[in-house]
Amino acid sequence: MPRYGSSNRIKSLVNMSIVAIQDFSQRLKSNKVFELFVISIIVLSALLIGAKTYAIPDYALGVLKVMDWMITAIFLFEIVIRFIGDPDKKRFFTHGWNIFDTVIVVVSLIPVEDSQLALVGRLIRIFRVMRMVSFVPELRLLLNSLLRALPQLGYVVLLMFIIFYIYAAVGSSFFAAINPDLWGDIAISMLTLFRVMTFEDWTDVMYEVMEVYSIGWIYFLSFIFLTTFAFLNMVIGIVVNVLEDEHAKEQAIQDKIDGKPTIEDLADQIAELKQLIINQK
Amino acid sequence: MPRYGSSNRIKSLVNMSIVAIQDFSQRLKSNKVFELFVISIIVLSALLIGAKTYAIPDYALGVLKVMDWMITAIFLFEIVIRFIGDPDKKRFFTHGWNIFDTVIVVVSLIPVEDSQLALVGRLIRIFRVMRMVSFVPELRLLLNSLLRALPQLGYVVLLMFIIFYIYAAVGSSFFAAINPDLWGDIAISMLTLFRVMTFEDWTDVMYEVMEVYSIGWIYFLSFIFLTTFAFLNMVIGIVVNVLEDEHAKEQAIQDKIDGKPTIEDLADQIAELKQLIINQK
Amino acid sequence: MPRYGSSNRIKSLVNMSIVAIQDFSQRLKSNKVFELFVISIIVLSALLIGAKTYAIPDYALGVLKVMDWMITAIFLFEIVIRFIGDPDKKRFFTHGWNIFDTVIVVVSLIPVEDSQLALVGRLIRIFRVMRMVSFVPELRLLLNSLLRALPQLGYVVLLMFIIFYIYAAVGSSFFAAINPDLWGDIAISMLTLFRVMTFEDWTDVMYEVMEVYSIGWIYFLSFIFLTTFAFLNMVIGIVVNVLEDEHAKEQAIQDKIDGKPTIEDLADQIAELKQLIINQK
Amino acid sequence: MPRYGSSNRIKSLVNMSIVAIQDFSQRLKSNKVFELFVISIIVLSALLIGAKTYAIPDYALGVLKVMDWMITAIFLFEIVIRFIGDPDKKRFFTHGWNIFDTVIVVVSLIPVEDSQLALVGRLIRIFRVMRMVSFVPELRLLLNSLLRALPQLGYVVLLMFIIFYIYAAVGSSFFAAINPDLWGDIAISMLTLFRVMTFEDWTDVMYEVMEVYSIGWIYFLSFIFLTTFAFLNMVIGIVVNVLEDEHAKEQAIQDKIDGKPTIEDLADQIAELKQLIINQK
Repeated sequence: MPRYGSSNRIKSLVNMSIVAIQDFSQRLKSNKVFELFVISIIVLSALLIGAKTYAIPDYALGVLKVMDWMITAIFLFEIVIRFIGDPDKKRFFTHGWNIFDTVIVVVSLIPVEDSQLALVGRLIRIFRVMRMVSFVPELRLLLNSLLRALPQLGYVVLLMFIIFYIYAAVGSSFFAAINPDLWGDIAISMLTLFRVMTFEDWTDVMYEVMEVYSIGWIYFLSFIFLTTFAFLNMVIGIVVNVLEDEHAKEQAIQDKIDGKPTIEDLADQIAELKQLIINQK
Repeated sequence: MPRYGSSNRIKSLVNMSIVAIQDFSQRLKSNKVFELFVISIIVLSALLIGAKTYAIPDYALGVLKVMDWMITAIFLFEIVIRFIGDPDKKRFFTHGWNIFDTVIVVVSLIPVEDSQLALVGRLIRIFRVMRMVSFVPELRLLLNSLLRALPQLGYVVLLMFIIFYIYAAVGSSFFAAINPDLWGDIAISMLTLFRVMTFEDWTDVMYEVMEVYSIGWIYFLSFIFLTTFAFLNMVIGIVVNVLEDEHAKEQAIQDKIDGKPTIEDLADQIAELKQLIINQK
Repeated sequence: MPRYGSSNRIKSLVNMSIVAIQDFSQRLKSNKVFELFVISIIVLSALLIGAKTYAIPDYALGVLKVMDWMITAIFLFEIVIRFIGDPDKKRFFTHGWNIFDTVIVVVSLIPVEDSQLALVGRLIRIFRVMRMVSFVPELRLLLNSLLRALPQLGYVVLLMFIIFYIYAAVGSSFFAAINPDLWGDIAISMLTLFRVMTFEDWTDVMYEVMEVYSIGWIYFLSFIFLTTFAFLNMVIGIVVNVLEDEHAKEQAIQDKIDGKPTIEDLADQIAELKQLIINQK
Repeated sequence: MPRYGSSNRIKSLVNMSIVAIQDFSQRLKSNKVFELFVISIIVLSALLIGAKTYAIPDYALGVLKVMDWMITAIFLFEIVIRFIGDPDKKRFFTHGWNIFDTVIVVVSLIPVEDSQLALVGRLIRIFRVMRMVSFVPELRLLLNSLLRALPQLGYVVLLMFIIFYIYAAVGSSFFAAINPDLWGDIAISMLTLFRVMTFEDWTDVMYEVMEVYSIGWIYFLSFIFLTTFAFLNMVIGIVVNVLEDEHAKEQAIQDKIDGKPTIEDLADQIAELKQLIINQK
């Protein structure tokens, strides 16, 4: 009994402390000072990455290393606090941003000193800057809205890929002998066509082809018209579409909040009137 | 009699088998596995075209050749199935996509081995990739909507062509002596002007002209303003216009499905009310 | 008396023939064949201009010269017919397009053979192609809608000119010593800045400046942001604005034609109902 | 007593003259001729700045100097007049444009002859052209509307900066050895990436990288897709959004002016009708 009692007492103590930590971490999460602190740590880590690209003396490198470990520790602390503060532990790892943050922190903890893996370690440190996006709600919202437009892009990108593929196949079949660096195989040809689409020295590419095939301009001009028109069409179309949908939704919500009557409400009211008049008879 | 009888029996057997094939082909057409199979064949044929642009050993070339014939056979089979499955044979060749598919398959069957026609054969094989568009309904829809915007472009393209023609005429009249490669005749001048419109090394062209005609910048700047403004104007205008029309149509259809009352419905209801009150008197 | 009589008879004959010509010219104007004939003459005159830019033998030049005079004669005939056909002679020259056509034809009649004026004559012949726009109603409509957007552009162009002027003043004050060809005076600087705005080899210009002033990138980046953002803003803004206004107008006209009730009509009907009920009491 | 009397008389004289000046200055402010005079002075000062960038003889320089001082004097006079004419002196310096004008005039008064400060003096003179914007109401309106769109850009610019920073960090980590002039440190890398975003000779940068890292094209293509898509998205989005809001506001105001009934008005009228019918019972 005493054993069990002490065990229970410990259990309840542990429970109490967990609740306290949970409470504390939740308050911390919604604390403005803590938010600013984390943001400044992210900015500091970004500046650190930038600083490393300059030629700096050895002692400064030591300082940077220490700061690097401190930032990793603070990030680890922040994510643990966030995890404890979450009332629903199971749902925690279903959020993309939480997984993203955890992966960044965990990989930061792996000691990478040998030259082979140092590369990966450096990349991970760079992606820490993305934590800015995962931490600032406005940026998260913005990125989400950009991502929401992506599925709509899917088939258009496929269509443009087909256009590129066909033109690249034609290009590498006919122009490979003219300049193998630009038209050697279908992959290189697609890169060259992307260059043409961005208008980057595309006339040099065309003039070279026209020396052999004098009607080569049809190939280039039709490609430019197809891709730029299709590209503009799709980007403008999608943006305006997404905007209008959001606008209509917002309007509908606002009208409901304002209690504005809709045409349906009017129809209901008129129907009521009709009933009244009929009853009067 | 026995002859006629057997003939009739054969006839009915043929009819039955035709119905069976029709039924089978229609089920095949709406079969997801068959759809995926055809799509993967198209992708395979596209990869084949790409593979041929790389330097590959002879035995691989043999394999590619065999695969090429197999793909042609499968495409032939698919189009025959599709034709049999169509309940209205006469309307089959009034659809642009059916004609397109048939032409691709038929031309693929022509044996082109000599170097002269090999070129055409290669092109046909490349256009097979377009079958992707004719097979995937979403891509077909997308291309149709792009094509629908084209007639609206007609007069704008004509207007831009006139602007190009006038500037090219002025250019080749005055600048031909400066650089015949760029302004030699009206066709070359139009190509040069298209280059200027895409901002590709246009200052080199202008500086060369300005050495002789110091006010040459007026020619180039006015051309750039006219064409980019007109181009942006037309592309944005058409896209937004087409979008708004589609949006309005969709809205009207959705409202009908939802049974939402329109202002016309309200007017009808009020008129009914009026009749009721008058009758009451 | 007989004199007066014959004079009257002549007068009435002249009047009759004028009416006949007027009637004939009006029927000609709305005649499809005549329209196609004039359009083909304009196209021919455009091709002639193009043909002259190629090296052609002497006898062909003679043929071209004869055709040139024939086209001028036909144009003169067409404009005279048009003038006679117009019931309101005074209003004829208040239309921009009529003035334009007349000037083109009149200047074409001036014999320009000596080398000095030949230049002007050539230009006039080129501007004949613009007659296409003045003759085809759809193109006239299109150009009018482009011109209608221009006044809206006025102040934006002024604002952009001020931005250009300030940056050019700064540029020619500080960078003139670095490269006088690009920053020599304020006019050259503005041309250089326009080149930077079109992204044409702008980094070469910037790198050259940054060798002397290492913070020169601020000048170029701020300029690019200001001008591209302002430009996009204005073009998109104006196009969408003009479109929406036209759309709303068309909608209103269409609704009137369809006899669709507006909210105002509903309000009137309800007011009528109210009156009915009050009278009933 | 006589002293006080004379003092009072002086006071009232001063007051009267102040009122007279205020009245005069207010009339001057709304005077069209004075407005045109100030605008022509601003244009003259702009032309003066431009003239100084040309090589001009010494005596002309003297004339320019005198004109410069005269313009400064006129600007000083104009701002004093404007200040006196303002009925609410305290609010005068809360307007950004007034502060801007005053700073320009005050700094113009400082004598800057030695070479060190001459630079600053020249810049101030250039910024005088901005007075055009502060003086013409339409330009002020335009600039205000551009500035109003800026806060909306805030987070998008931040997001693009993060994308740039991450890519610059990756670039300077991996490509610094290839070309230190382009990828030496994170700041230079960001400038190089901006160059890539404007498509300015970006293929040269890419080909150089691809000689060492053959998959380097992924880096460049993903960057171009991210930034151009995000940029187009944000500019079009913001412009269309701002336009729609303004359009809706204008529409609402116009409808109120026209006395057009809204759906709310209809609902009110129907409710009134209902009351009437119920009372009738």
